[in-house]
Amino acid sequence: MYSFKNDYSEGAHPRILNALMESNFEQVEGYGEDCYTQKAIELLKQSIGRNDVDIHLLPGGTQTNFTAISAFLRPHEAVIAANTGHIFVHETGAVEATGHKIISMEVGDGKLNSSHIKAALDLHTDEHMVKPKLVYISNPTEIGTIYHKDELEQLSIFCQEKKLFLFMDGARLGSALCSVENDLELSDLALLVDAFYVGGTKNGALIGEALVICRDSLKEDFRFHMKQKGALLAKGRLLGIQFQELFRDNLYFDLAKHANKMASLLRDEIRKAGFKFLVHSPSNQIFPILSNRLITELQKNYSFLVWSEVDADHSAVRLVTSWATKEDAVLGFIEELSSSPDHF
Amino acid sequence: MYSFKNDYSEGAHPRILNALMESNFEQVEGYGEDCYTQKAIELLKQSIGRNDVDIHLLPGGTQTNFTAISAFLRPHEAVIAANTGHIFVHETGAVEATGHKIISMEVGDGKLNSSHIKAALDLHTDEHMVKPKLVYISNPTEIGTIYHKDELEQLSIFCQEKKLFLFMDGARLGSALCSVENDLELSDLALLVDAFYVGGTKNGALIGEALVICRDSLKEDFRFHMKQKGALLAKGRLLGIQFQELFRDNLYFDLAKHANKMASLLRDEIRKAGFKFLVHSPSNQIFPILSNRLITELQKNYSFLVWSEVDADHSAVRLVTSWATKEDAVLGFIEELSSSPDHF
Amino acid sequence: MYSFKNDYSEGAHPRILNALMESNFEQVEGYGEDCYTQKAIELLKQSIGRNDVDIHLLPGGTQTNFTAISAFLRPHEAVIAANTGHIFVHETGAVEATGHKIISMEVGDGKLNSSHIKAALDLHTDEHMVKPKLVYISNPTEIGTIYHKDELEQLSIFCQEKKLFLFMDGARLGSALCSVENDLELSDLALLVDAFYVGGTKNGALIGEALVICRDSLKEDFRFHMKQKGALLAKGRLLGIQFQELFRDNLYFDLAKHANKMASLLRDEIRKAGFKFLVHSPSNQIFPILSNRLITELQKNYSFLVWSEVDADHSAVRLVTSWATKEDAVLGFIEELSSSPDHF
Amino acid sequence: MYSFKNDYSEGAHPRILNALMESNFEQVEGYGEDCYTQKAIELLKQSIGRNDVDIHLLPGGTQTNFTAISAFLRPHEAVIAANTGHIFVHETGAVEATGHKIISMEVGDGKLNSSHIKAALDLHTDEHMVKPKLVYISNPTEIGTIYHKDELEQLSIFCQEKKLFLFMDGARLGSALCSVENDLELSDLALLVDAFYVGGTKNGALIGEALVICRDSLKEDFRFHMKQKGALLAKGRLLGIQFQELFRDNLYFDLAKHANKMASLLRDEIRKAGFKFLVHSPSNQIFPILSNRLITELQKNYSFLVWSEVDADHSAVRLVTSWATKEDAVLGFIEELSSSPDHF
Repeated sequence: MYSFKNDYSEGAHPRILNALMESNFEQVEGYGEDCYTQKAIELLKQSIGRNDVDIHLLPGGTQTNFTAISAFLRPHEAVIAANTGHIFVHETGAVEATGHKIISMEVGDGKLNSSHIKAALDLHTDEHMVKPKLVYISNPTEIGTIYHKDELEQLSIFCQEKKLFLFMDGARLGSALCSVENDLELSDLALLVDAFYVGGTKNGALIGEALVICRDSLKEDFRFHMKQKGALLAKGRLLGIQFQELFRDNLYFDLAKHANKMASLLRDEIRKAGFKFLVHSPSNQIFPILSNRLITELQKNYSFLVWSEVDADHSAVRLVTSWATKEDAVLGFIEELSSSPDHF
Repeated sequence: MYSFKNDYSEGAHPRILNALMESNFEQVEGYGEDCYTQKAIELLKQSIGRNDVDIHLLPGGTQTNFTAISAFLRPHEAVIAANTGHIFVHETGAVEATGHKIISMEVGDGKLNSSHIKAALDLHTDEHMVKPKLVYISNPTEIGTIYHKDELEQLSIFCQEKKLFLFMDGARLGSALCSVENDLELSDLALLVDAFYVGGTKNGALIGEALVICRDSLKEDFRFHMKQKGALLAKGRLLGIQFQELFRDNLYFDLAKHANKMASLLRDEIRKAGFKFLVHSPSNQIFPILSNRLITELQKNYSFLVWSEVDADHSAVRLVTSWATKEDAVLGFIEELSSSPDHF
Repeated sequence: MYSFKNDYSEGAHPRILNALMESNFEQVEGYGEDCYTQKAIELLKQSIGRNDVDIHLLPGGTQTNFTAISAFLRPHEAVIAANTGHIFVHETGAVEATGHKIISMEVGDGKLNSSHIKAALDLHTDEHMVKPKLVYISNPTEIGTIYHKDELEQLSIFCQEKKLFLFMDGARLGSALCSVENDLELSDLALLVDAFYVGGTKNGALIGEALVICRDSLKEDFRFHMKQKGALLAKGRLLGIQFQELFRDNLYFDLAKHANKMASLLRDEIRKAGFKFLVHSPSNQIFPILSNRLITELQKNYSFLVWSEVDADHSAVRLVTSWATKEDAVLGFIEELSSSPDHF
Repeated sequence: MYSFKNDYSEGAHPRILNALMESNFEQVEGYGEDCYTQKAIELLKQSIGRNDVDIHLLPGGTQTNFTAISAFLRPHEAVIAANTGHIFVHETGAVEATGHKIISMEVGDGKLNSSHIKAALDLHTDEHMVKPKLVYISNPTEIGTIYHKDELEQLSIFCQEKKLFLFMDGARLGSALCSVENDLELSDLALLVDAFYVGGTKNGALIGEALVICRDSLKEDFRFHMKQKGALLAKGRLLGIQFQELFRDNLYFDLAKHANKMASLLRDEIRKAGFKFLVHSPSNQIFPILSNRLITELQKNYSFLVWSEVDADHSAVRLVTSWATKEDAVLGFIEELSSSPDHF
């Protein structure tokens, strides 16, 4: 059985484990004040090309989302998110648990644009309603689509005009930035959004997300929020060592490229075999539409999510690749799928 | 420079890193539904001698405290804690951030007893005040003292009588249970408290605390609370593998014993050298009272916390040992301290 | 200028002010423990025909909603509401501010039924999502529609099956229960929902809503929640005296009947004049569709809300009547509307 | 039986009820946008002598405290209060329910000074602890003592230096400002504190507190917070009419003066009769120390709180006077007390 269920099925890239081993008996400061964390932050700043951002390493994505959002907002302020947004659907109300409403907007392709934001603003006109203040986007989105530079620029300009914070969930940011269709760089993000994070967990780390705060007014006292929300690890070195390893050369991007390459291989071959897709997703998640019989057949040797029903006989499935996906497994999957007599 | 500042200065016990290495490329379920976590929970249940408890692995201590406490209480219910309690002083209001007041009681030795609880109850008589509902204790306490079986029994009986939940923070539980003065076992805890946790971070793990919920009424839906509060790691294997390693034989207790042995060595020799202590602490934290001049001298080669001023010329310092503390370093420290001409 | 904008434009029914006057210098207990509040609760129980419910008087609707909902739910539990629901749209995120997500369901006529609830449950399947636990309905709804007995029975049975609490916002309950189309009584509500409230503010009182808690498990410690959320008035007499006056005879229902009668008069005459309505609303809010030119004309002498655009030239307006609405004003409005040369 | 239990036993000053009567059938805007509220705010500004403050009318004291404090603070920021502070003891954790810790300081006379604040700041040094940000004081305090101008000036300067907000709970502000020992005016408060409120409920109104926000940075969007916390009454006129009446001439202060005069009469005569007091309280609450036998005797005809045990045979009681206290009742009480053979 091989799994295409997600990009967190394996452990960490071996270089990361080695780095943990090598540094293991050094005594360092706790709570993210260790030399590794400091070095990791320095490397991240170099990679982003900006020295004036604040960077913090947090254990996981949900925690990064609610810690940042609750730190940035006043009690009456709300988030605007796509109705597919991770914080809206899959974080057990973590943001609401900090007191903030999420206003969800119907979007077809997972991407918010300024007309969605405008529609939300138009509905929130006075103090009987929450005040929209932060726009939450993911890149790639929850359905694998990515933001292009012009799209992000338009969103950014609109948010600035309307005094909205723009926050990017980058749990799979590596895959977005390494997509063949991508035209954004880390340095663009630092200019266009108020805060974003560089996801480690889904790109080779055991745990860890690097939050980058670009807007000055959002920087103050952020470590207090991290501690209060449980995000300040006693052994902060665990995060520092991992991000140091990921960013001391090109490892972070190499891993994402591998994941994307495996997804492309799947996508191309599945298309060639005559299948359609639920959505065009040029990152490490793809959503082919298969017959239910074929799905049952494939599930004998492969695990993956059945994403949504398309018609009585067909469903879209989600295949996710990662830094650890084996080409052999991909090829095997393709072969099995292509050779099925029942594949339409 | 050698550090006695805390018990989280180093990484993890090598066996843990090896276990991470060996399992690294296995594909497993996410979010704590992996085989390692299941196995770790099984081993913990065996060690506790109880099959009817619920066990969850969470990343850190602050997070375990506020996730559990907020899951257990209704909005108007409050916590009773010692004024030295970690949640009261050193968690940036994490419990209050979930909406609950902590009622602090002045205690000399860090330990709450039933008369403290009674005093708190007597002050909270009607709906104009919060309703005390959960008693938070730490074992060992924040100043290294430990609960004896009869003390915990009395507290437990009193709490049951008053319908209060009894919750034990076990961030350093290994050290308490391995103290030469200890007469409690894990199985006693499961009988005497409603929930407690077995701390990993400060006893050989990179991160991880194992929360044990003993009272049936507190078990329901706990994973929802973990997810909402950011405690459900995508790669839950990281916690599972560590606890499996710590509890598949006696490693957890061996590590704690080493820490205690190093603390005893320090304690005995410092006493022999004629120094007094702020408090009698038979675990891995000790608080000798030294002259400020001697402190300055020792700080040249050793780092440790200056805990509190005792008089104009003397302060108590905190020395913490761990599973990783080197006997040579302890002996060196003792020698330097004993040979000082200025040690009174 | 006469206002049909809402049902809280005037003060209180004169009998209420008289009752305040007469009792003014009596010294009574504070915080709702006064004889008037006790008497009001007794009268409400008689009116409901149930002695085993708990009744509390709170100042306002938003406060009643979030105080009750936050008291009833655990942190990971969520509310299901219509997308037009007052708590979802018009209470500035008050429920979310207590930590709970509201899952909104698209409904045409403001009324939730079991298929909406089922759809919400089907989407919330595990601990990565909030757990739906309370169904919030309003009677009448925010667009003036009312629940019929069979509808409420079906909803009630479905909620019980699924272990969901059913909560009814009764800000305008008088108008619903006195609608010519209504077949529900207060005693039915006590059987069919877990909690509901009898709105005073919009039916003759200065302020005040009477919350009725029917389910035993939701009753405990409710006064703690009221105090914590600011709902326990020092001069609780203000609420007690008003509800005593409203329920010592039929005043509450007489006032609602008057409001409905005025709405019926408007509805019938507007229909006769050839206009259509946005929705069939047999309570004290009606939503006729008028040409924008006619609206502008009418706004010279009458104030009311323009509710929604229907087409380029027409909009629906909201006309609200109350216990205080003057028949002359209604007749004047009708005359002006009917005599307009431009009324289509 | 005559009650000296509190200052909210009666209804409202008759002029207030008359004003409610007279305006009753006028149709006005809801939610505090009515002409009465606007006029009341204007009168309050005149009385304070400042046009650049923002004023909002809220229903009650607890609600004003938590609405203001939660609006002013970010999640990690905490309140410093006296251990006798109303928010710390008697509001069922309302402030903590909004997520903020209250740091309590031991004070003898109910009054915080800069050395208390400094002590709190000295204990909160980094992100492992909450960040003290708002100082909560009451004038008069919960034990009837009042702040003198120089005391408040020192506190104000210290808070400004340390970037702390200074917030004054004025539930009984009338009594403080009308004390014979007072040297503060409303205009001083507006200069010295960042926000305060002028209590109506305990000085002649049915309900109502006027919150005055002096610091510009705290003003923005305050009505959103009011709505979210349930403080925006649909019939805001109820608050507006009352404060208009209290401040259109000197009524507010006349009522407070009467309360103080009655308290002075009690104080002077009780002292003359040879009794001591728990604390010197020059406002409308006094705390004489009586023998328990005498207390039992007096309780036959008078109700009041037994405040605290002084020794085995004596207790301090709390006597509260109000705008409605009858001189005859006071004289009767004094006579009974003085004529008791058992009064020492």
